[in-house]
Amino acid sequence: MNGAVDNLRVVLVATRNPLNLGAAARAMSNFGATHLRVVNPYEVAFREARSAVGAVELLGHAEEYGSVAEAVADCGLVVGTTAAGRRELQHELYRLEEGARRIKRTLRRGRVALLFGSEKVGLSNQDLSHCHWLMRIPTRAERGSMNVGSMNLGQAVAVCVYELVRTGKVAPARKPWPEERPRAGADELERLTQLLFAVLRASGYVKPRGAAATEEKLRRMVRRMNLSAADAGLWLGMVRQIAWKLGATEDQKGV
Amino acid sequence: MNGAVDNLRVVLVATRNPLNLGAAARAMSNFGATHLRVVNPYEVAFREARSAVGAVELLGHAEEYGSVAEAVADCGLVVGTTAAGRRELQHELYRLEEGARRIKRTLRRGRVALLFGSEKVGLSNQDLSHCHWLMRIPTRAERGSMNVGSMNLGQAVAVCVYELVRTGKVAPARKPWPEERPRAGADELERLTQLLFAVLRASGYVKPRGAAATEEKLRRMVRRMNLSAADAGLWLGMVRQIAWKLGATEDQKGV
Repeated sequence: MNGAVDNLRVVLVATRNPLNLGAAARAMSNFGATHLRVVNPYEVAFREARSAVGAVELLGHAEEYGSVAEAVADCGLVVGTTAAGRRELQHELYRLEEGARRIKRTLRRGRVALLFGSEKVGLSNQDLSHCHWLMRIPTRAERGSMNVGSMNLGQAVAVCVYELVRTGKVAPARKPWPEERPRAGADELERLTQLLFAVLRASGYVKPRGAAATEEKLRRMVRRMNLSAADAGLWLGMVRQIAWKLGATEDQKGV
Repeated sequence: MNGAVDNLRVVLVATRNPLNLGAAARAMSNFGATHLRVVNPYEVAFREARSAVGAVELLGHAEEYGSVAEAVADCGLVVGTTAAGRRELQHELYRLEEGARRIKRTLRRGRVALLFGSEKVGLSNQDLSHCHWLMRIPTRAERGSMNVGSMNLGQAVAVCVYELVRTGKVAPARKPWPEERPRAGADELERLTQLLFAVLRASGYVKPRGAAATEEKLRRMVRRMNLSAADAGLWLGMVRQIAWKLGATEDQKGV
């Protein structure tokens, strides 16, 4: 995907709040999307956002358009984002997960425009008429909101672009044990078991009659710790010190 | 998932900006997560965010804590979020996609705390020592930033919670954790940590100068044990007996 994201054009239509422009740009930048287009932003907002301290470079390169038509002219696929509750009878509507899958396929071959409407009213019917289909972020429907599920614009952009760059192929059930952590050897585990047993005996934890059962229980428990070699060393050092303090030795084990 | 998200606790640590508190709450609300916890927020920020017009109801119900330990005490799994660039040698680190899959599995059976650090510095080593493992949002690494990939806090929360509620054909879920073994609560793990620390101090293992570092090391080590509730009980019983024998009490911890 990472190469293909270069084909993405995020198009913000009639954004009013400079903070949202900045937040959208920031989110895009975080996920490696660099092409921002704005359509009829509130002039003041756009100027403010651009000059804001810390505004990402991306915003400085944003292209400004007078209409959605112009902003999407060079894109082979135009997708609008919309609210959870909004009924769209004119367009196919996909959940973000499915929509993103379709967008990714297209991005490999050409440009895709992803439209976000204004904070208050979302995309107008006029804007929507430029879209091939619509995508909704799976937010909970909130009372009568027209924009993206009443979602903050910067967050909506973040979630959509994230879905486009996320990798689905996380190796199924990755090795539960990180390779950089070699496992403790059975000999170390047994040494730890014996040392711990000696400490517990010296502490009065081991009942004389149940000694054998306790030792077994302890052995199983130490195995369940799934210790790395490094952690086994750490444990041995600690328990050895406690044993020394208690005057417990492994020899004591033999009662 | 939607039922399970009720087991999620989003924990914001030392958040400074009221706008970010509001944005995080808003994002959670959008995706149906309702339990927000704040640890040592800037008092003014928290008050401002709560009283802000349009602040979501959720923020009003946010629970405030004085420490990470208290905020995660009733959670069986504690996950920290971290920056793309940050090198965490102490913890297992998963990409969001994989981390979320693991969290979702655990959410079906019990509570999970998801920690976000402050805007400026992210989570401290002390905060991180309470975590079982870390998760990173796959942002582009940006120069030396310590927080979530230089990501806006509200957007980071949005993307993480979205990943938790999104639907995908999740690969055949190989359960890494036997269902019959409920996980130990964070409160039990912390009790074990403190008790073990007291024992080590009484044994002379803890060097006066390195006490804080040793405590952190110990905390991480105890989390790496991935204890079941039953095993945590077993450990507590053993270490308590050793502590008794050594005359060590947790009060000794305070030097």
